[in-house]
Amino acid sequence: MTSWQGKTKSMSKQVTGIRGSFFDFIDDPWKHVGNEEKSARFYADGLLIIEDGKVKAFGPFDKISVQHKDVEITHIPGRLILPGFIDGHVHVPQTRILGAFGQQLLEWLQEWTFPEEIKYKNRDYAKAGTKHFFDNLLASGTTTCQAFTTTFPVAAEEFFEEATRRNMLVIGGLTGIDRFAPEDFIDTADNFYKDTKRLIGQYHRKGRNLYAITPRFALGATPDLLEACQKLKKEFPDTWINTHVSENPSECRLVEELHGCPDYLSVYEKYELVGHKFSGGHGVWLSNGEFERMAQADASVTFCPVSNFFLGSGLFRLGRATDPKARVRMSFGTDVGGGNRFSMISVLDEAYKVGMINNTHLDGSTDPRNQDLEEAERNKLSPYRAYYSVTLGGAHGLYIDDRVGNFDAGKEADFVVLDWNAGPRAMVWHESMIVGNEGPQTMAEAADLLFSIMTVGDDRNVDETWIMGNRAYQKSAKDEPALASTH
Amino acid sequence: MTSWQGKTKSMSKQVTGIRGSFFDFIDDPWKHVGNEEKSARFYADGLLIIEDGKVKAFGPFDKISVQHKDVEITHIPGRLILPGFIDGHVHVPQTRILGAFGQQLLEWLQEWTFPEEIKYKNRDYAKAGTKHFFDNLLASGTTTCQAFTTTFPVAAEEFFEEATRRNMLVIGGLTGIDRFAPEDFIDTADNFYKDTKRLIGQYHRKGRNLYAITPRFALGATPDLLEACQKLKKEFPDTWINTHVSENPSECRLVEELHGCPDYLSVYEKYELVGHKFSGGHGVWLSNGEFERMAQADASVTFCPVSNFFLGSGLFRLGRATDPKARVRMSFGTDVGGGNRFSMISVLDEAYKVGMINNTHLDGSTDPRNQDLEEAERNKLSPYRAYYSVTLGGAHGLYIDDRVGNFDAGKEADFVVLDWNAGPRAMVWHESMIVGNEGPQTMAEAADLLFSIMTVGDDRNVDETWIMGNRAYQKSAKDEPALASTH
Repeated sequence: MTSWQGKTKSMSKQVTGIRGSFFDFIDDPWKHVGNEEKSARFYADGLLIIEDGKVKAFGPFDKISVQHKDVEITHIPGRLILPGFIDGHVHVPQTRILGAFGQQLLEWLQEWTFPEEIKYKNRDYAKAGTKHFFDNLLASGTTTCQAFTTTFPVAAEEFFEEATRRNMLVIGGLTGIDRFAPEDFIDTADNFYKDTKRLIGQYHRKGRNLYAITPRFALGATPDLLEACQKLKKEFPDTWINTHVSENPSECRLVEELHGCPDYLSVYEKYELVGHKFSGGHGVWLSNGEFERMAQADASVTFCPVSNFFLGSGLFRLGRATDPKARVRMSFGTDVGGGNRFSMISVLDEAYKVGMINNTHLDGSTDPRNQDLEEAERNKLSPYRAYYSVTLGGAHGLYIDDRVGNFDAGKEADFVVLDWNAGPRAMVWHESMIVGNEGPQTMAEAADLLFSIMTVGDDRNVDETWIMGNRAYQKSAKDEPALASTH
Repeated sequence: MTSWQGKTKSMSKQVTGIRGSFFDFIDDPWKHVGNEEKSARFYADGLLIIEDGKVKAFGPFDKISVQHKDVEITHIPGRLILPGFIDGHVHVPQTRILGAFGQQLLEWLQEWTFPEEIKYKNRDYAKAGTKHFFDNLLASGTTTCQAFTTTFPVAAEEFFEEATRRNMLVIGGLTGIDRFAPEDFIDTADNFYKDTKRLIGQYHRKGRNLYAITPRFALGATPDLLEACQKLKKEFPDTWINTHVSENPSECRLVEELHGCPDYLSVYEKYELVGHKFSGGHGVWLSNGEFERMAQADASVTFCPVSNFFLGSGLFRLGRATDPKARVRMSFGTDVGGGNRFSMISVLDEAYKVGMINNTHLDGSTDPRNQDLEEAERNKLSPYRAYYSVTLGGAHGLYIDDRVGNFDAGKEADFVVLDWNAGPRAMVWHESMIVGNEGPQTMAEAADLLFSIMTVGDDRNVDETWIMGNRAYQKSAKDEPALASTH
């Protein structure tokens, strides 16, 4: 492999090239049932030309290289290069408590989450924790996230500062909760309004930062807090809105009771939050009607299968969210620390499993009344549907597909380099069934490798992660500058 | 760490000692709701004395060392040492196809499984595949398995031969199917009877091998084949019986129809197979009555959560199988290749998730008619319940708890050495919440580390695997003799 010599942004050349096997998406595979390859692009020998961090040209090496003769090219052979993974729902200050034992959502919040998040009042702890957070993202091949911080502005500040240092495209914001949490943890609606306003001014669209008005969840929000959000969104219509919706059945009941609303979504609707740039995390218990309203409003849902299993929240109805009659925008998320894995590859493993359980539920074999063969089929997470969902689909779900998600000219050049032979010991012999030493020659072979990465592999398959055309993580480099300070 | 100098069995000394932090079980944690630590043993500084591969003494270092003064001791600091993991249900000839896309059980068998298994007719392929299989087990910390082979005796022979070379305690047998498979794959009941009889003579209780009469599953077995099994069990009452039961709802219906039986279990009961030393894999769709009949018959069920998710089979009712009024013997299994992971640590991760989904289903929050708070609680897979299930509990589930499963004197010294800081990048900071550099000092700390290994970690946490007092796998050793030939 030709070693690329530039070290960090400061030294980056204006124009560079990456040569290798590329796989990305140009459309939603759920639109192409039976012909999913129509949604994807694969170049066994491709070339990506990057100018000032953005894609200048992309295509077969033979064609693109003659148009860009004087460009220094980094060759990355024996790997698959994909757009960077997008984590649509993750909690920065839960980085340390992922995988904590034993409760469903509401008890888990009280026992594990709030006590850890309160430490992020302290700037030093927040700074250290946020570094860990981004190190974990990059080691997982995740280049963009939509993140929750916590009640204390310092946590939001550190989030944007660290993202800026790493030049990463992120969405996030101060995370408001003004009830259902310990006294010293909750905020007031007034403070939330003022702090959010200041933080929007300070960070929104500064560098690659995007701001999301972030009421934590309807249960922890009084009408005052939601009114503050409504007001903020009116004053700053360009901002995002990020929250939780219909995660756990006990939570859903409480929310409906407390807000006197017929369903969970209607609480946010009441305050005019549900629309373009709105993301609701989980949506496990959304009714058909709520899914339809989200689709009509151009709102987005984030599927967090690892978390939904881990907290026992339930089985997200993937085939319903992808109903062509009411297709909802959708990203996938880890939901660390409710999710116990930082890797979007692990998210795909679990998403596949949720889909398969749904598939059996809907094929009529357990109860003929549940039979819906089309919805059953839409639950099957093929490699096309899977990797679309964490790249272009995730970008679409977060309303940033004009900027990232694939290798179209003009997009910001964030990408991940996958080694299909890494992972557990079982991987190598398995992969030798699919390809030889020459690597994948067809899209079908590449898709098979990608599927095996998500089912047999894990974060070990992430070999390198690149941000805006610069390498930000390399697995083999034990002392990569960006990561050296974190243990 | 003092390096242990003996290479393999041939050179082993008569008596050796292992010093380190030990965690094992002396009872079923489900019997101690609220006091699960009563089922376990933990020595922060312990000593295991091994004589000719068996445990001679076990306890605190201070006490045991004075009784064994001239013993060469290997010190393994900074690790947790547990009895080797037991995989109760795994398919040797599916080693290469784990994680294959897209179907529920019956289609998956036809498309992926039979075409791969048929290759095991060829001795060279069977030999190579079986080596891969055992390499994967050892790299996962698994020291014992109950395995399916396939229709061809050569696969069963290679299984026992390779297990013998590695001195591993295994249960397995020729896997009979005489319908519902391609023409060139199926066997006849007569041949199955003759071959099984020969193989029992050749392998049962030779070295550490144990033979299981293995009708693949009721769907693929004619009454003739099941009669052959019945006859074999009468002739060889000391043998095990291993099969599948109630995995997939469509399969269950077909089985009941084809055999004219009221439920799946009753097919096996009809041929007097359900009793001591009988294991039924999966049991996802077992009725309450079937669970009760299994408990009464002293039969065993194997919980395969990774597979049950991956093939969409369903959610095993863990809290029902552990009902104190009808506690069923139970092991946990990977079910590779229906399961997409070789690691029993991954099995625990997924088992926890099945339990949590069941917990929510049974707490009454989705449907008050389903509420059963005791069963809901039994679904919560604490670290005690989890690691019990893959050590002593797994041994009990396979009727070998007189030989392995904990460190009682007389047991065969198979164990695994766990590094709680290995695994994904998120691990180290998480673990620093639980213990400092001195490692766990209390059982509770050790249990927390074990829980985090199963939720944040994976096979990377397996540092070493020992068989009968000899080290058979070491993660850091790239060219360990036992593994060198396999790539």
